[in-house]
Amino acid sequence: MNWVDLNCDLGESFGAYKIGLDEEILRFVTSANIACGFHGGDPSVMRRTVALALANNVAIGAHPGLPDLIGFGRRTMEISPQEAYDMVVYQVGALAGFVKAAGGTMQHVKPHGALYNMAARRRELAAAIARAVYEVDPQLILYGLSGSELVREGERLGLRTAHEVFADRTYQQDGSLTPRSQPDSMITVQEQAVSQVVRMIKEGVVLSRQGVDIRIQADTVCIHGDGPHALVFARRIREVLENSGVSVQAAGHK
Amino acid sequence: MNWVDLNCDLGESFGAYKIGLDEEILRFVTSANIACGFHGGDPSVMRRTVALALANNVAIGAHPGLPDLIGFGRRTMEISPQEAYDMVVYQVGALAGFVKAAGGTMQHVKPHGALYNMAARRRELAAAIARAVYEVDPQLILYGLSGSELVREGERLGLRTAHEVFADRTYQQDGSLTPRSQPDSMITVQEQAVSQVVRMIKEGVVLSRQGVDIRIQADTVCIHGDGPHALVFARRIREVLENSGVSVQAAGHK
Amino acid sequence: MNWVDLNCDLGESFGAYKIGLDEEILRFVTSANIACGFHGGDPSVMRRTVALALANNVAIGAHPGLPDLIGFGRRTMEISPQEAYDMVVYQVGALAGFVKAAGGTMQHVKPHGALYNMAARRRELAAAIARAVYEVDPQLILYGLSGSELVREGERLGLRTAHEVFADRTYQQDGSLTPRSQPDSMITVQEQAVSQVVRMIKEGVVLSRQGVDIRIQADTVCIHGDGPHALVFARRIREVLENSGVSVQAAGHK
Amino acid sequence: MNWVDLNCDLGESFGAYKIGLDEEILRFVTSANIACGFHGGDPSVMRRTVALALANNVAIGAHPGLPDLIGFGRRTMEISPQEAYDMVVYQVGALAGFVKAAGGTMQHVKPHGALYNMAARRRELAAAIARAVYEVDPQLILYGLSGSELVREGERLGLRTAHEVFADRTYQQDGSLTPRSQPDSMITVQEQAVSQVVRMIKEGVVLSRQGVDIRIQADTVCIHGDGPHALVFARRIREVLENSGVSVQAAGHK
Repeated sequence: MNWVDLNCDLGESFGAYKIGLDEEILRFVTSANIACGFHGGDPSVMRRTVALALANNVAIGAHPGLPDLIGFGRRTMEISPQEAYDMVVYQVGALAGFVKAAGGTMQHVKPHGALYNMAARRRELAAAIARAVYEVDPQLILYGLSGSELVREGERLGLRTAHEVFADRTYQQDGSLTPRSQPDSMITVQEQAVSQVVRMIKEGVVLSRQGVDIRIQADTVCIHGDGPHALVFARRIREVLENSGVSVQAAGHK
Repeated sequence: MNWVDLNCDLGESFGAYKIGLDEEILRFVTSANIACGFHGGDPSVMRRTVALALANNVAIGAHPGLPDLIGFGRRTMEISPQEAYDMVVYQVGALAGFVKAAGGTMQHVKPHGALYNMAARRRELAAAIARAVYEVDPQLILYGLSGSELVREGERLGLRTAHEVFADRTYQQDGSLTPRSQPDSMITVQEQAVSQVVRMIKEGVVLSRQGVDIRIQADTVCIHGDGPHALVFARRIREVLENSGVSVQAAGHK
Repeated sequence: MNWVDLNCDLGESFGAYKIGLDEEILRFVTSANIACGFHGGDPSVMRRTVALALANNVAIGAHPGLPDLIGFGRRTMEISPQEAYDMVVYQVGALAGFVKAAGGTMQHVKPHGALYNMAARRRELAAAIARAVYEVDPQLILYGLSGSELVREGERLGLRTAHEVFADRTYQQDGSLTPRSQPDSMITVQEQAVSQVVRMIKEGVVLSRQGVDIRIQADTVCIHGDGPHALVFARRIREVLENSGVSVQAAGHK
Repeated sequence: MNWVDLNCDLGESFGAYKIGLDEEILRFVTSANIACGFHGGDPSVMRRTVALALANNVAIGAHPGLPDLIGFGRRTMEISPQEAYDMVVYQVGALAGFVKAAGGTMQHVKPHGALYNMAARRRELAAAIARAVYEVDPQLILYGLSGSELVREGERLGLRTAHEVFADRTYQQDGSLTPRSQPDSMITVQEQAVSQVVRMIKEGVVLSRQGVDIRIQADTVCIHGDGPHALVFARRIREVLENSGVSVQAAGHK
């Protein structure tokens, strides 16, 4: 039987600043990527978000980012693989503290923003991040862009991985995402986005922007958590998937 | 037989900034309190300091502080007990990540600077910090000022504790440290400081500034790690203790 | 003729985080206190907020806070007067850069949050802040709690000052605000708040919580800028003031 | 008559962390680039460094950097030209506050680390930084790598500029610095470094690594301020320059 995980970035509020519809989106996803204080999140937000995820029976993951709060971790920084290793160990450890204090278990790690994108393409950075995850806890599942260097390096180390796909992004013929700078990088029609996901899961293919079907592994789908549209979409994709005979469950339950 | 632990604050360098003689002082102490990135330390420094402590067979502890890098965690901040709980869980977790990645074990937690001082006197804050330590790992030993609210609250929860004493500070009749603002708060003659420590360990008393012996529990002695004088003192106190029949060993080996 | 200034804290968004209804509230106030990056705000937000204020013909002031982004500058920190001086010079200077680049003029400085409250009561801190403002630019107007140490110290140096009053807070017999921890610290009925302000401006008195009229100087009224209720209140108070023959204008136009 | 400015990065200490031999190096240089709190420096360090520079009759400049304290502003970050503009206005303004409070005048702005290197090559970033400097104060002199996009963009706006050269770095045939990753990027023999500088100033040429003389404009020489070797070199280069009939003076005195 087909299955898929729905993951969402959560716990990105900071101090007096609130961002995201965490409580609402938790009803639709199966895995939560919780910010760890570098690009967003703070210790109190982390504690509350872990509690929320546990209360909703949603699997917990760390969502480490670059140390760039002003840029929300979205600006590429030229960090060394060793620095990447260190910032991932730190942030995964910090979240693990809250998970342990709450009596839960951490399921996965998914890098955030620019760190995610850099890790998708740069092998040495990917290897350092994978090793950080492995050395903190080899039972953790490493989430990364489907087919990327990051998941490949995780698999090389023996980590379980989850290949992530996007509902609302178009793909190039080489399996990479169409850069956001391109005019047709986003899928704005909801049903088209839903269909793309169903096909990726059930057939293992996606129609590239160049009009050719390419193979893609879809273990987990990235769901956005901000804006009322996001909630509607999350509810819809979950409904269609379940009606299509796809089991929606956290990657760790596979 | 008498025993005592010698602890030192370490890993307080940050980025390009170096502080402390970490490599040298590790030869003399038995427990290292490693900064966790809030008042000092950064992920790379934490990794290197954990490795150094393991290589020197020195027990590892987390040294969480207030989020005040400019003030080095020394300025009192009016945080709530919940905020104290959250920042301790975060920092202990972060250091635990490095300890686990290095294959080691964390022995203890000792709050830093203003957090340490606030936790010594304010019961609710002390209780929150003790609970944070307990909930992350009930095997951890809580270090705090001898006879303070912090160790009392730790003991109430069932945590092992280490009552900390100072070689170079004078004590008041109520067992508290003479505030640094007072002229005779510091002991500047090395042999006098050494004698005070030996007596605290072997007899369980210290001569108060008011000239009266008071009872004091001395499980661990705070050793400073910056300045060449610190190294001379550390070597000397260890030598005198061992010659006095006091076993110098980490609190966890008791 | 009577006059009063209406001031509002603005530019407190940070990076991806949006807070406050800056564009809307600027239609009702005469002076904007712009956050300077310590408790809120960032360089890009500061530039945009300065431009917004100029476009709305609202006078610009710096709103320096404690270096505590997580706590939004609301947590008391034990800083020295010298540290207060330094952080005020830094933040006022930073905002002055944007004001100068935009071809505008800075009118005033109003400390934020815990710095405001500490400066109201502690004379040395107040003196240091007033001196910082004076030495950066003696033409600046210092805003502070009506009758507080801060405005007194500013006046002692020869600075122009604006005594600030609150519409929605009750006052004690000694002229201080009723602490928020007290049950009747807030005025929640809008017309009561408006009446309190009108009376403070036109008669120079306020009815204390103890039921006695006390004298109060009301040069500027603090208007909140977050939440739809704030906009309604701002519009209402401006309307009532103007209908009562009170001229609503920036403090610098007096 | 020939003249040259000797500039040095100063005020890079932070909180409890001390870096650089500021007091000593000020005896040998004519312009001080003072860190502004993003990559190093803090408000108190800025105030003290401004006072030191004034006491030594050394011209003052702002040394804005990327918001990356852990990386000391040395890691490339993909910021937009608008973000570069904003962070330069902010930092220049902040330092200007201290200069004004001390009764001094700011002479120049020199970007730090990765911001300096990015501004040397990327025209849009260079233009944004030059515009930031110009709009805060068109009298400021813009320091940048000799022949770089940064000084070109400054000149295009009508700013005075100072083309900076390095004593201890080798140059490529196109006038760029040999990257540090290359084996012969550094000149380690002191007299060779001194000779290179004298020739750049007096003849306007430098022998490239490829063995060909290339034209170079040398208005200011970067002097390092950390390590005892730096002091010896600074003293030596000043002595040789003065003996060679080169007037050593701040760029603003030209």
